Amino acid sequence: MQPIKKLDQLIKSLEGKSPKKIAVTFAQDPNTIGAISKAVDLGFAQAIMIGDKEIIIKECKKLGVDYQKFEIIDEKNDVKAAALSVEMVRNGDADVLMKGLIGTDKFLKAVLNKEKGLLPPKAVMSYVCALDIPKYDKLLFITDTAVIPFPDLKQKIAMTKYAVNMAHKFGVENPKVALVSCTEKVNPAIQNTVNDAIICKMNQRGQIKNCVIDGPLDIFLACDKEAVKIKGVQTPINGEADVLVFPTLEACNTFYKGLMLFGGGELAGLIQGTIKPVVVMSRSESEKSKLYCIALSCLMAED
Amino acid sequence: MQPIKKLDQLIKSLEGKSPKKIAVTFAQDPNTIGAISKAVDLGFAQAIMIGDKEIIIKECKKLGVDYQKFEIIDEKNDVKAAALSVEMVRNGDADVLMKGLIGTDKFLKAVLNKEKGLLPPKAVMSYVCALDIPKYDKLLFITDTAVIPFPDLKQKIAMTKYAVNMAHKFGVENPKVALVSCTEKVNPAIQNTVNDAIICKMNQRGQIKNCVIDGPLDIFLACDKEAVKIKGVQTPINGEADVLVFPTLEACNTFYKGLMLFGGGELAGLIQGTIKPVVVMSRSESEKSKLYCIALSCLMAED
Repeated sequence: MQPIKKLDQLIKSLEGKSPKKIAVTFAQDPNTIGAISKAVDLGFAQAIMIGDKEIIIKECKKLGVDYQKFEIIDEKNDVKAAALSVEMVRNGDADVLMKGLIGTDKFLKAVLNKEKGLLPPKAVMSYVCALDIPKYDKLLFITDTAVIPFPDLKQKIAMTKYAVNMAHKFGVENPKVALVSCTEKVNPAIQNTVNDAIICKMNQRGQIKNCVIDGPLDIFLACDKEAVKIKGVQTPINGEADVLVFPTLEACNTFYKGLMLFGGGELAGLIQGTIKPVVVMSRSESEKSKLYCIALSCLMAED
Repeated sequence: MQPIKKLDQLIKSLEGKSPKKIAVTFAQDPNTIGAISKAVDLGFAQAIMIGDKEIIIKECKKLGVDYQKFEIIDEKNDVKAAALSVEMVRNGDADVLMKGLIGTDKFLKAVLNKEKGLLPPKAVMSYVCALDIPKYDKLLFITDTAVIPFPDLKQKIAMTKYAVNMAHKFGVENPKVALVSCTEKVNPAIQNTVNDAIICKMNQRGQIKNCVIDGPLDIFLACDKEAVKIKGVQTPINGEADVLVFPTLEACNTFYKGLMLFGGGELAGLIQGTIKPVVVMSRSESEKSKLYCIALSCLMAED
């Protein structure tokens, strides 16, 4: 498989593959309907809309969307709709779960339910995004933009594995993983840099496979060949990182938002750790990003 | 004074002002000589080069720089050169201190010397940068890119004041200060968002003056009017921040490096808290950034 290097190639890569079934929890707002409708039209998704049937049909009509292309399950209570859609994904009746007009807290409560949810016991839940920056010649898989504020070692290892797995799905066979910091120096007083050293050794010992990990590295050493030359730092990443694992959510969040705003960046993200892909989009995401998110979930649902 | 909105205007703003005297510690590498020479040629700086006179003259000749435009003080030992240049700035024989070919540790030791250094007792040392992003219509003053890894409340207040002071020097009369986080929600479990709330109240009570502070805010709410409208968040910053105070060095560092690399950003930065401006540049900075740094120090040395 040729690696997918830009997000528009992601949509193309799904052509000819069997569409994935997406269970949409409380699919009754124009944002959700607009995004899922486009994905259905492009042929890579089928939608099961769980929510108030009357409202769904009314909203579809307002948008000029043919509601008959969706399977609609009538459930007027949002918490029950969440439980039902999670159950469908657990049972294999759907391949992907997607949040509609329901509070994130209520939605995640259903996802995280110990008996009936989608997160295996002791699994770490995290969030990985594929970031498309015009000035970088391939995608950057970044984590964690949204879930774990201050990852500890165990969480950082899980985050790294999730991001590497996503890179594999995009056809990047042996992704270069940079553990991001401010400098390339290990500082025993800064736990993140210590954890980075540990993760590098685990990678070298084959405990984290099918990728090349180095860190701590700053953004320049991770993503700029020229900076690596000037600084003379020996690193297998060599300014060509595929994956950036950030020390904190704050760092990852400000990094990608800065590049969305001022670097022309586009983004597709997904919750990680669950047995099937879970899509949670924010209202403020662009139309394009929303479509990319759904496409990403379908790619990740491939065996 | 018209606000300086881009870094090239910074250079122009110094035209016609009396040049500032810069004491350069161990000024004997081509990087330092190249940068300071340009500043002298542009007329806003005079240079006192403290270091090995023979080497300085040799390096100048190699670069085709007329060494006679510099005052050169012969001192072959780097630690002594640092002490001497710090003393000159303390005495008022120079307006600005600048690091040359000496380790940052040795250099800062002289700056931080309790009896003979440049940092007043109990003052917080920090770092503020003016970041010029083509897609933003004014400068962003960001802190802390380099000195304080995890600012506590006291440090964050000091950082905020330093950045506001720099904005004032650039002619921004009542700068809008965004305390940056991942979201706009105060989360009692995340100390940074709690500190942000405290700083906002201090601003409202007049304890931090001549600026408008709001936070926590994410990058979108801080710098994008459209996002403020979509999210419907009430904030006096309104997507037009002049100052961004980051929760950690890691967040600030990855933010600006991402934008330098992928958003066409240019940067000028300065140590803050010292009685006179202190310039510490890294080798990997661009020629332009180096010149901007020196210009910034001269602007900040104005009464």
